[in-house]
Amino acid sequence: MARIGIIGSAGRMGNALQAAVAAAGHDYAGGIDKGGDPLALAQASDVLVDFSAPAALEYNLDAAIHAGKPIVVGTTGLEERHHWLVDAAAVSVPVLQTGNTSLGVTLLSYLVREAAQRLGEDWDIEIVETHHRMKVDAPSGTAILLGEAAARGRGVSLHEEEVRGRDGITGARKAGTIGFASLRGGTVAGDHSVHFLADNERLTLSHLAENRGIFARGAIRAAEWLLDKKAGRYTMPEVLDL
Amino acid sequence: MARIGIIGSAGRMGNALQAAVAAAGHDYAGGIDKGGDPLALAQASDVLVDFSAPAALEYNLDAAIHAGKPIVVGTTGLEERHHWLVDAAAVSVPVLQTGNTSLGVTLLSYLVREAAQRLGEDWDIEIVETHHRMKVDAPSGTAILLGEAAARGRGVSLHEEEVRGRDGITGARKAGTIGFASLRGGTVAGDHSVHFLADNERLTLSHLAENRGIFARGAIRAAEWLLDKKAGRYTMPEVLDL
Amino acid sequence: MARIGIIGSAGRMGNALQAAVAAAGHDYAGGIDKGGDPLALAQASDVLVDFSAPAALEYNLDAAIHAGKPIVVGTTGLEERHHWLVDAAAVSVPVLQTGNTSLGVTLLSYLVREAAQRLGEDWDIEIVETHHRMKVDAPSGTAILLGEAAARGRGVSLHEEEVRGRDGITGARKAGTIGFASLRGGTVAGDHSVHFLADNERLTLSHLAENRGIFARGAIRAAEWLLDKKAGRYTMPEVLDL
Amino acid sequence: MARIGIIGSAGRMGNALQAAVAAAGHDYAGGIDKGGDPLALAQASDVLVDFSAPAALEYNLDAAIHAGKPIVVGTTGLEERHHWLVDAAAVSVPVLQTGNTSLGVTLLSYLVREAAQRLGEDWDIEIVETHHRMKVDAPSGTAILLGEAAARGRGVSLHEEEVRGRDGITGARKAGTIGFASLRGGTVAGDHSVHFLADNERLTLSHLAENRGIFARGAIRAAEWLLDKKAGRYTMPEVLDL
Repeated sequence: MARIGIIGSAGRMGNALQAAVAAAGHDYAGGIDKGGDPLALAQASDVLVDFSAPAALEYNLDAAIHAGKPIVVGTTGLEERHHWLVDAAAVSVPVLQTGNTSLGVTLLSYLVREAAQRLGEDWDIEIVETHHRMKVDAPSGTAILLGEAAARGRGVSLHEEEVRGRDGITGARKAGTIGFASLRGGTVAGDHSVHFLADNERLTLSHLAENRGIFARGAIRAAEWLLDKKAGRYTMPEVLDL
Repeated sequence: MARIGIIGSAGRMGNALQAAVAAAGHDYAGGIDKGGDPLALAQASDVLVDFSAPAALEYNLDAAIHAGKPIVVGTTGLEERHHWLVDAAAVSVPVLQTGNTSLGVTLLSYLVREAAQRLGEDWDIEIVETHHRMKVDAPSGTAILLGEAAARGRGVSLHEEEVRGRDGITGARKAGTIGFASLRGGTVAGDHSVHFLADNERLTLSHLAENRGIFARGAIRAAEWLLDKKAGRYTMPEVLDL
Repeated sequence: MARIGIIGSAGRMGNALQAAVAAAGHDYAGGIDKGGDPLALAQASDVLVDFSAPAALEYNLDAAIHAGKPIVVGTTGLEERHHWLVDAAAVSVPVLQTGNTSLGVTLLSYLVREAAQRLGEDWDIEIVETHHRMKVDAPSGTAILLGEAAARGRGVSLHEEEVRGRDGITGARKAGTIGFASLRGGTVAGDHSVHFLADNERLTLSHLAENRGIFARGAIRAAEWLLDKKAGRYTMPEVLDL
Repeated sequence: MARIGIIGSAGRMGNALQAAVAAAGHDYAGGIDKGGDPLALAQASDVLVDFSAPAALEYNLDAAIHAGKPIVVGTTGLEERHHWLVDAAAVSVPVLQTGNTSLGVTLLSYLVREAAQRLGEDWDIEIVETHHRMKVDAPSGTAILLGEAAARGRGVSLHEEEVRGRDGITGARKAGTIGFASLRGGTVAGDHSVHFLADNERLTLSHLAENRGIFARGAIRAAEWLLDKKAGRYTMPEVLDL
């Protein structure tokens, strides 16, 4: 049983995290939001879980460092400089940063890499995702994470091979590319499918999130796992021993 | 039993049409391709089936008119002026023009219109299609046909409501729009899904073509149906009595 | 805006109904459970929604009759004598009885009947459903409702044509039958797919419920619709004007 | 380039094998059927591919042994004594025996085992397959092969954990079981999905065969791979280096 502090404790994700802390039998050490004091929270917690905003990341990591506490960073929209901050913090404390805390998506990305590594370039890769009507960007961070897993399996760069927003006269599909498509509507919490399309056969690896609870559940499991680790930067696959 | 002439009788679709003529117990009156004489073929046939090229349409329709024979036009890539030619020919002979001769897709478009008409704008509509890696355009003609069915059901213009190639910072989904997404790979003959996504529930209407044979089968059924019709322009839904 | 009374207001479905009353902008007239007084509730309400137990149906219908109020009956597990009670009550007040209050499922069953009516017996019909691991019976009531829609479209009796629990040496599929398959696992609120499988093409009509909220939402919409109706027995398709 | 001899060269699978030999740029060394001479064929070939009947297996393996040639055995319906014959032949020549030569299914079974091994028993496993209306048994051999992969990943016996033909009052799902469901209809060459269903999330791994060509293609790839191997019994996963 651990004391878990939530940064970004209001809103739907914050509520889901609080529920997941309780469901896993841990103590809720408290939560803060914009304007809150991350250092006080860090001192009262055994581990921090941060689902707030990129702008707050530096303060949150500093709080973890000063209190000497591990931190799970699930905040999305990070840029390159945020990753440098994570790297720097990981010198002092254990930090697990991820774009998707779902255990199912984490396993899916492992399976996608395995499949991409073993199937030749004659298996075309297409990734399609569906999210609720309020989502403002496309493709989803998770779709990109899956595309990176496929690219890594093939030993190529996603940046060079990705095809997005296919529309109009596109010409025949270029071998080796990885396509993305995004659907938006309703209240879909997150569907992702990775298709491997070959001559006369198709392999599809899919994940469906029924609600946001799974992201909270995975974040809390990551926090548990991080408790006894030494300083360093960790990833979700390590939590599942992949 | 009828004598059926094929315009565009070479290539994969031409072969599939010839096989479908035989499978349905009809006589194959012969076939022509680029440079062939459509009038001679029309005179030797009870009905023509044209899967050639837009550039040849005027000659093919003229042949049907002069021989006084019905014609099924399955050629894709037609522009507005081609439709005027079809309208003009339909004054003299029965003409059935369609972008998709599959019976399953024809029924699907009917069901999509029915669903769109009965479900409110709080059911977001998204259309996704998958085709083989050689296809050069997106979205498919069939996807557009399904989008038009949805728009007609809702009483809106597809042109004004369509959203294609979603990518990047798109903002939240605009109510009432109809989204399109296209996947390409392998040898997929044609998958189409129309999603209606509402608060906490989803309705999906899908069609999967295992191979091109279904388009040939539907074209021949349309040709049979057209045999005893009077001059006029017809559509696939009429063949299925929808 | 109407005053809506809930019979069976505790438990997960009761909570979902209360939330749906509020979400639709109505007044919650109150709720009762086992041992509560349906007549007092009926007098304080403009319309009743009953999701309780078959044993309570007679008292609940009597309350609606004496107060002269319409009633939606969503209670499951009804037997033939319960349907006689519903018929009798419908002489005095508007009664809408249904096994599934989801608007999506109601529309799906309409589309299934339309498709079955227009497609010949060479389109084999197979129905597959998935529900959470706690469900104790198979196939689901909704799968049977969809099977009845298909049978009605074809003009056959589901009882005579249904095939369940396919396993072992079954022989080739008998033409005209309607197959059922059931998957169980996780927390799936309810997936249903009706497949029409022909030579080289397939049509699939599917519904996915993300959570139980949709049944509550549909029940409240049915209650609204029932407010200005005259005495009689009504069904969900009428709510959607199908 | 190799000389490939086909045992069981008539019929749909034999034709598909001949086409696959040509498509892969190999020489067709000839084919035999019931009553043919396997030894003469073995002597004229670099490798044999046998898709005939269990009754002919002993003669075919003897031919491979006497000519000193590798052999791929794709014949289905083998019993225990046939497997002893395969083991005995593998002392002298390379033998690859398999119930499914598709590369996609081979990879799928590997991914299913990986997923089952890493996900706990709180992820319920359900396997659903669809085949054409002429198939006489259920579940398919491939579905069982996938079930065995899942059971192996979990370290349990499929025989003890499988649940088939779910119908009627089944009670809640028993933890740790592996469910099977079979759909039949149309001309479906073979769809297989393995669902892992947990609290609020689902992972699905699927394969779709567009036609029988993929089984021929995989058999020829297995034959190529077998050419330079030493005596021994091999499996499809080894061909993909899994």
